[in-house]
Amino acid sequence: MSVTAAQGFTAAGIAAGIKDSGAPDLALVVNQGPRLAAAGVFTANRVKAAPVLWSRQVLRGGRVAAVVLNSGGANACTGPEGFQDTHATAEKAAGVLGVSAGEVAVASTGLIGVRLPMDRVLAGIEKAAAELSPHSGEKAAIAIKTTDTVHKTAVAKGEGWTVGGMAKGAGMLAPGLATMLVVLTTDADVDAAGLEGALRAATRTTFDRVDSDGCMSTNDTVLLLASGASGVVPDEAGFAEAVRVVCDDLARQLIGDAEGASKDIRIEVVNAASEDDAVEVGRSIARNNLLKCAIHGEDPNWGRVLSAIGTTSAAFDPDRLNVAINDVWVCRNGSVGDDRDLVDMRDRLVRITADLAEGDASAVIWANDLTADYVHENSAYSS
Amino acid sequence: MSVTAAQGFTAAGIAAGIKDSGAPDLALVVNQGPRLAAAGVFTANRVKAAPVLWSRQVLRGGRVAAVVLNSGGANACTGPEGFQDTHATAEKAAGVLGVSAGEVAVASTGLIGVRLPMDRVLAGIEKAAAELSPHSGEKAAIAIKTTDTVHKTAVAKGEGWTVGGMAKGAGMLAPGLATMLVVLTTDADVDAAGLEGALRAATRTTFDRVDSDGCMSTNDTVLLLASGASGVVPDEAGFAEAVRVVCDDLARQLIGDAEGASKDIRIEVVNAASEDDAVEVGRSIARNNLLKCAIHGEDPNWGRVLSAIGTTSAAFDPDRLNVAINDVWVCRNGSVGDDRDLVDMRDRLVRITADLAEGDASAVIWANDLTADYVHENSAYSS
Repeated sequence: MSVTAAQGFTAAGIAAGIKDSGAPDLALVVNQGPRLAAAGVFTANRVKAAPVLWSRQVLRGGRVAAVVLNSGGANACTGPEGFQDTHATAEKAAGVLGVSAGEVAVASTGLIGVRLPMDRVLAGIEKAAAELSPHSGEKAAIAIKTTDTVHKTAVAKGEGWTVGGMAKGAGMLAPGLATMLVVLTTDADVDAAGLEGALRAATRTTFDRVDSDGCMSTNDTVLLLASGASGVVPDEAGFAEAVRVVCDDLARQLIGDAEGASKDIRIEVVNAASEDDAVEVGRSIARNNLLKCAIHGEDPNWGRVLSAIGTTSAAFDPDRLNVAINDVWVCRNGSVGDDRDLVDMRDRLVRITADLAEGDASAVIWANDLTADYVHENSAYSS
Repeated sequence: MSVTAAQGFTAAGIAAGIKDSGAPDLALVVNQGPRLAAAGVFTANRVKAAPVLWSRQVLRGGRVAAVVLNSGGANACTGPEGFQDTHATAEKAAGVLGVSAGEVAVASTGLIGVRLPMDRVLAGIEKAAAELSPHSGEKAAIAIKTTDTVHKTAVAKGEGWTVGGMAKGAGMLAPGLATMLVVLTTDADVDAAGLEGALRAATRTTFDRVDSDGCMSTNDTVLLLASGASGVVPDEAGFAEAVRVVCDDLARQLIGDAEGASKDIRIEVVNAASEDDAVEVGRSIARNNLLKCAIHGEDPNWGRVLSAIGTTSAAFDPDRLNVAINDVWVCRNGSVGDDRDLVDMRDRLVRITADLAEGDASAVIWANDLTADYVHENSAYSS
């Protein structure tokens, strides 16, 4: 049900001809109100795509009437002309939908450094607007795919209200958000400040802790739109948890469909002196290419975990570190632990536990293995 | 001529049986004086192998009579027993050579988390001592290879004195030194402080700026030994330059032989506000897996260069960034520049220039591409 699971939203997903393949590449999500509250979280990359610069500005107003999303081109590193393209996209949607351009968010994904074919984008917006429906959430989710092999949607229900969402992202997945576009919608009656709090809390422990390949995108966008159509004001904690559940579900789907990956790696850092330490150590492990190759080879190479921990500034004593792979404590007190032959790594899911033996903070980071398929896919992406 | 190019040094390289393959795996380098001055630089990884902990202690005295090096096992993450193994190695060499154990440095390389077969190591030291010769520098360089396909040596000559050296390292090559063992020797008459200054200055702009795969080793060791056998006191700048030249030569050889690599990538960051900024940006580019894949595919994907720059804290304006690949300025002012089809990437060497347009500082970082062969080699390494 995707972005149309909540009442008060329509969507469309169509082929505008942005992609040479003719696959769907333009999506529209429209909030029919009565509320138009919205919050957004964007990439931490200092090189930001034109749609990110635009939408960040839109979100400052806390109101979003519609979101235009396209795959087939990131509109990043395209200069002032690229920003004009985003502006024209928002103006076009505003005109067709009868809303203000300042309430139209735009999100793009695809190759960096290439202008969008604006004639096709603008014609596509007209076509999409004509197909808007409360039943087209799946179509919208399909239209934002790039190298994704499947489209990603999730839904959580509260008492009388719903949170739904869609996501795309398969590569350039790293802290500070992934190369991902995410639109979440709810019919709960929540104002922009309430959405902002719930969204920031949710992304901090979900999308921000997905690190598929260590590469941070120029285009990451996560939007949460509320229509208030249910007429129900949810309790704050319950709403925040529903948003977190949907984000976590989508984040896991991103990892599960990452480019070329054969393993999903769940890295849990425990007994850290602080959550910051736990996250730093988890990310260092997540980004270690040698370890990622070892996991691909189903090799419980805990030495590479220790060498990754050793590059961090977290509090730990090298002689008190413990590491488990799939619950076998192959490293104890910084040295050889239980028999590594006991580790069964045949499943797609591989769990690494790093015990820093310093405090009681913890964090979970999700990563993928490094494979020849990843290399192949990304050495051929733009050609 | 390797470590025996300078007068006053003998070396040996033998097969001690540490490697199952029966390949050479133990090297000995002996300083015959009259001077025994030495300096060392070790890994910045906080998880340090036993031989690093030992040798760092030895180097505090500024005197090294001999170095024992082995491949076939890193003796890292092996606990107090592993440290005892290193201690026993130094004691054995000291006894055989008639020197103090406190003047014997030890360096190991290979798999982390495995104890060394000490009976073979100790017997190997006796065998190596019996074969010491001023003509066996090449044999020593061969005995320290792991996944290296070739052994690495370099020599620079001053007026009446020589600096020679050997290195090994093919993976886990990253800032703060690589998985590499390096021994440099000179017959120049330089004291420990003079060696320390020359070595630190040289490694800072050579080995420290090699980033093949972003992974920092637990065992990196670079030693510089002076025999004084030439009787010549070199001028300080000339000596420092000779040490830098040998380090640079060996560092380039490491990149040229990195595991699975098909490209050597020279990343020059220019017009940075500071050298620190230039190095930070260079390292971020060097570690971007998506870019490394693109280079492998001979795809001048400058968008991935910009997205890597955007993750740093360096001073820059996204709209003033310029990027050249093999001298073609494919990105100008943060946007599309010259035709990317003009870029010829068929050579092994690929040159990326990132112009931050902020100041006049610069730095060069060397990296490799990311290939299916790298994945294969490192998913199978310990099995």
